[in-house]
Amino acid sequence: MPTRWYNLLADLPTAPPPPLHPGTGQPVGPEDLAPLFPADLVAQEVSTERYVDIPAEVQDVYRLWRPSPLYRAHRLEKALGTPARIYYKYEGVSPAGSHKPNTAVPQAYYNARAGVRRLTTETGAGQWGTALAFACAQFGLECEVWQVRASYDAKPYRRIMIETFGGQVHPSPSDLTEAGRAMLASDPDSPGSLGLAISEAVEVAAQDPTTCYALGSVLNHVLLHQTVIGEEALLQLAKIDETVNVIVGCTGGGSNFGGLTFPFLREKLAAGGAGPVVRAVEPASCPSLTQGTYAYDFGDVAGMTPLLKMHTLGHDFIPDPIHAGGLRYHGMSPLISHLYAEGLIEARAKTQQDCFAAGVLFARTEGIVPAPEPTHALAAAVDEALACVDTGQEKVILTALCGHGHLDLPAYDAYLRGSLVDHTWEDTELQQSVAAALSRLPAIPG
Amino acid sequence: MPTRWYNLLADLPTAPPPPLHPGTGQPVGPEDLAPLFPADLVAQEVSTERYVDIPAEVQDVYRLWRPSPLYRAHRLEKALGTPARIYYKYEGVSPAGSHKPNTAVPQAYYNARAGVRRLTTETGAGQWGTALAFACAQFGLECEVWQVRASYDAKPYRRIMIETFGGQVHPSPSDLTEAGRAMLASDPDSPGSLGLAISEAVEVAAQDPTTCYALGSVLNHVLLHQTVIGEEALLQLAKIDETVNVIVGCTGGGSNFGGLTFPFLREKLAAGGAGPVVRAVEPASCPSLTQGTYAYDFGDVAGMTPLLKMHTLGHDFIPDPIHAGGLRYHGMSPLISHLYAEGLIEARAKTQQDCFAAGVLFARTEGIVPAPEPTHALAAAVDEALACVDTGQEKVILTALCGHGHLDLPAYDAYLRGSLVDHTWEDTELQQSVAAALSRLPAIPG
Repeated sequence: MPTRWYNLLADLPTAPPPPLHPGTGQPVGPEDLAPLFPADLVAQEVSTERYVDIPAEVQDVYRLWRPSPLYRAHRLEKALGTPARIYYKYEGVSPAGSHKPNTAVPQAYYNARAGVRRLTTETGAGQWGTALAFACAQFGLECEVWQVRASYDAKPYRRIMIETFGGQVHPSPSDLTEAGRAMLASDPDSPGSLGLAISEAVEVAAQDPTTCYALGSVLNHVLLHQTVIGEEALLQLAKIDETVNVIVGCTGGGSNFGGLTFPFLREKLAAGGAGPVVRAVEPASCPSLTQGTYAYDFGDVAGMTPLLKMHTLGHDFIPDPIHAGGLRYHGMSPLISHLYAEGLIEARAKTQQDCFAAGVLFARTEGIVPAPEPTHALAAAVDEALACVDTGQEKVILTALCGHGHLDLPAYDAYLRGSLVDHTWEDTELQQSVAAALSRLPAIPG
Repeated sequence: MPTRWYNLLADLPTAPPPPLHPGTGQPVGPEDLAPLFPADLVAQEVSTERYVDIPAEVQDVYRLWRPSPLYRAHRLEKALGTPARIYYKYEGVSPAGSHKPNTAVPQAYYNARAGVRRLTTETGAGQWGTALAFACAQFGLECEVWQVRASYDAKPYRRIMIETFGGQVHPSPSDLTEAGRAMLASDPDSPGSLGLAISEAVEVAAQDPTTCYALGSVLNHVLLHQTVIGEEALLQLAKIDETVNVIVGCTGGGSNFGGLTFPFLREKLAAGGAGPVVRAVEPASCPSLTQGTYAYDFGDVAGMTPLLKMHTLGHDFIPDPIHAGGLRYHGMSPLISHLYAEGLIEARAKTQQDCFAAGVLFARTEGIVPAPEPTHALAAAVDEALACVDTGQEKVILTALCGHGHLDLPAYDAYLRGSLVDHTWEDTELQQSVAAALSRLPAIPG
C-alpha cells in the first residue's frame, strides 16, 4: 500500500489559474479558507510539494479495504472478442461502496487532530454522506449531513446507511438554518437542491468554531487524497509487468478521475510525454468538458464559493435527472480543467443508453453491477476494446470501477424496461439551457 | 485457491440417516432424483468420496471473486477491548453479495454439461435467485425464478439485480403453473410463500426434459460446493500460522455453516477430537437446532419432497417475518442435524436485538454493513470475545461474514428507530406454534 499521496501541482509545466475572491477578484489565500477547513487541509489545498505522507492513523483505516483489487476483465474481453487487455481498479470494496472514503478518512482525521468536534456536509444521492459518516465514526467526530429532500424521500437506503455508520441526516431544506427556513417559508414543499444543501451545511459550520465543513470532490486536497488509487494501480501493474496504453475514467467533479490518472500523468510528464492516452468520460447530458466554457464561475448554485477557473456549463445550469448522481455537476475540478486546456488529457461524452448497455454487459461477464457513474468509463473502455477488434492491436486499457450499483438498481430497472430518458448534445433544449446558464457567468470584480 | 471440494460424509464416524420416499418409507435412490437434477449432481448428493475436483470451468468463474478475503477484525477487537483475535471470511465480495454463487456456479455448469437448457428455482428475499441468474449467464442457460409475491412487491432491488444478470422473475403465485393458478383461483391477492414458489419451480422443471431445478441449501451437494469457503480459510490461517479455538457460523438451511466448518471438522476428527469448538447460531424466533425435534419431516411446506431426518420445527411452521430471510427455514440440513445429534457441534439462538446491535458495531468499526444473517454469528463472536475480556484468554475466533447488507438496509432502519419486533423462545405464542406444527409431523409409511 502506498504511504504517500501525490500532488500533481508539483510537476505541471504551467500552474493552474488561482481561485479568486468573488468580492475583490483577488486570489484566495489560506486565511479565506480557515473558517471552513482545518489548517492541515488548507495547507494541502495550496501546497506544491510533490508528496504528502499518509498519516499512520489514516493508513490504519485504509487497511480495512486497501489496497483495492486490480482485476483483469478476462470474461468481458472474451465477450467482446477483443485482443485488448482490460484492467479495472475496483473501489466498490470500500465501506461506502465507492472511492469517496479515500478522502473522507483523511479529512475526518485532520479535523479531529485540529480539535474539531463535528463535520457538516451535503449529499445528493448519498455516496459522499455515507463515506463521511463512516470516516467520522473512526475518529470520534459527529457527522451531520444535509440530504437533498427529493433524494431523502425517494432513496431511503443511503440515508439508512449513513445512520448505520452513526451519522445524522437532515432533509434539505431543514428548519435548522436560515437558508433552509427561508426556502421553507417561500415553498414548504421544496424538493431541495444540492446548492441549497451546501448552503445549509456551510452555514452551520461557519457559525460554530468546533464545527467544520467537508467537501467530497473538486478541490485540490480531495484529488490529492484520491491519488492512492493511481499509486496502487501503478504498483499492481508493475508487479505483472504490464504497461498501460489507454486510461479512461468517469468525471463528475473530478476526484475519481484525478485519483486514478495523476500518478500516471507524473510518469508521462517525466518521460517527456511518452505514455498512455488519458481520457475523461462524462454524460452527454452534463458535458462540462466537451461542451462547456473554460471560465471563472462559482462552484455552487447559490454563488457562495470562491470563483474557480473551470470548464463549466454555468453555475445555475440544472442537469437532467439522469441516474449518475455523482456526475451531475455543472463544473469540473479546476485542476482537471487546466489539464484539459493544456491538452494533457482528452474528453468524451457518452449517452445513458451506451453506458447502461456497457454496465449490463459488465455485470453479466464480470459479476459486478457497476454504479451508473463508472458505466461511462466502461462504455469508453468497450469502444476502445472494439476498435482493437478491427485493428488487431493488443492495447492495454485501464479504468477505475469507482463504485458498485447495489443502491442504484432502479436505474437499471428503467434501462431494462426501456423507460430510460436519454439526452444528447444534439437536443436543442439542452444546448439552449446551457447557453442561457453561460450567459449568466459571474463578472470578475476589480 | 483450493482445487477440490471436501465431502464430510467420507469421514463421519456414523452415517446420517438416509432420506426416505414419502410413499414407501424406503430410502430414496438416485433414480428418484433424476427428474430434477443432472446425473453429476445426483452422484455428488449420494457420494462418500472424500474429495471432488472443482472443474476448470467452475474455477474460472470462481476466480472473479475467489479466494475471498480473510480479515482480522482489529478495530472491532479494539472497540470490545478484548485479548481475543477475531477473523472473518468475507463472502460479500461475490457477484450476488453472498456465499450463494459458490454452489450456483457448479450447479449451472453441471446442468449445462448435461444439455439442460433452462434452470428454475424459487427465491424469497432474492439472494439465491440472484446467484443462480449470475451463474446461468456464465454457461448460457436460461434462468427462471419464482419470487414470493410479498417480496417481489416490497423488495424490488433483488428482482432488478436478477434481471440485470439476465434472469427472468415471476411473482409467485403465477398463472404459469397449476399450483400457481390453483392458489390464484382461491385467493387472487395471495402474498405467496416459499413453499408455493418451490412447488411452481419444481412443476415447471418436472414437465420439461430440458429444464432442471436448482436448490440453494440443505442438500449434501450444496454443502459440498460451499466447502471452498472453509478450505480457503484453512490455507489462509496456515499462512499466518494461526490456530482457531472457536468457530461460529449462522445457520438457516446450513450451507454457509457447513461450507465454513466442514474442512475444520475434518482436521478435528483426524486429530481425535482435538480442535476448535464449532458452534451454529440461529434466530431465537426460528430455533430449529436448539428447540426443534430430530425427526423425519418434509423439506417443503407443501410436503412434496422426500422425508428428511433433521432438526425441525414442523414443515408447516411459519416463522415470524424477521429480517434474516435466509434463516427463516423450519428445518436444518440433514447432515448438520446429524452432526448436532452426534455432539460434534454446538448450537445457540440469538435475539434480533443482539444481532443488529452486533451488526451496527461491526459496521462502525470494520466498515462493512453485514447482512442480517451473519449478524447472528457476529453476535456470538462478540459474546465469545467479551468472555475473553473477563478471563484474559487470547482465544482465536473465526466466523464467516456470508454477505453484505446493502439490500437489507430497511431492517437496520427498523432497529435504529426501535421498531424492530423481537421474538424469543420465552414467548408462549412461539412455543405453542412450534408444538402445534410438530404435532403434524408426517408418519413414516411401511
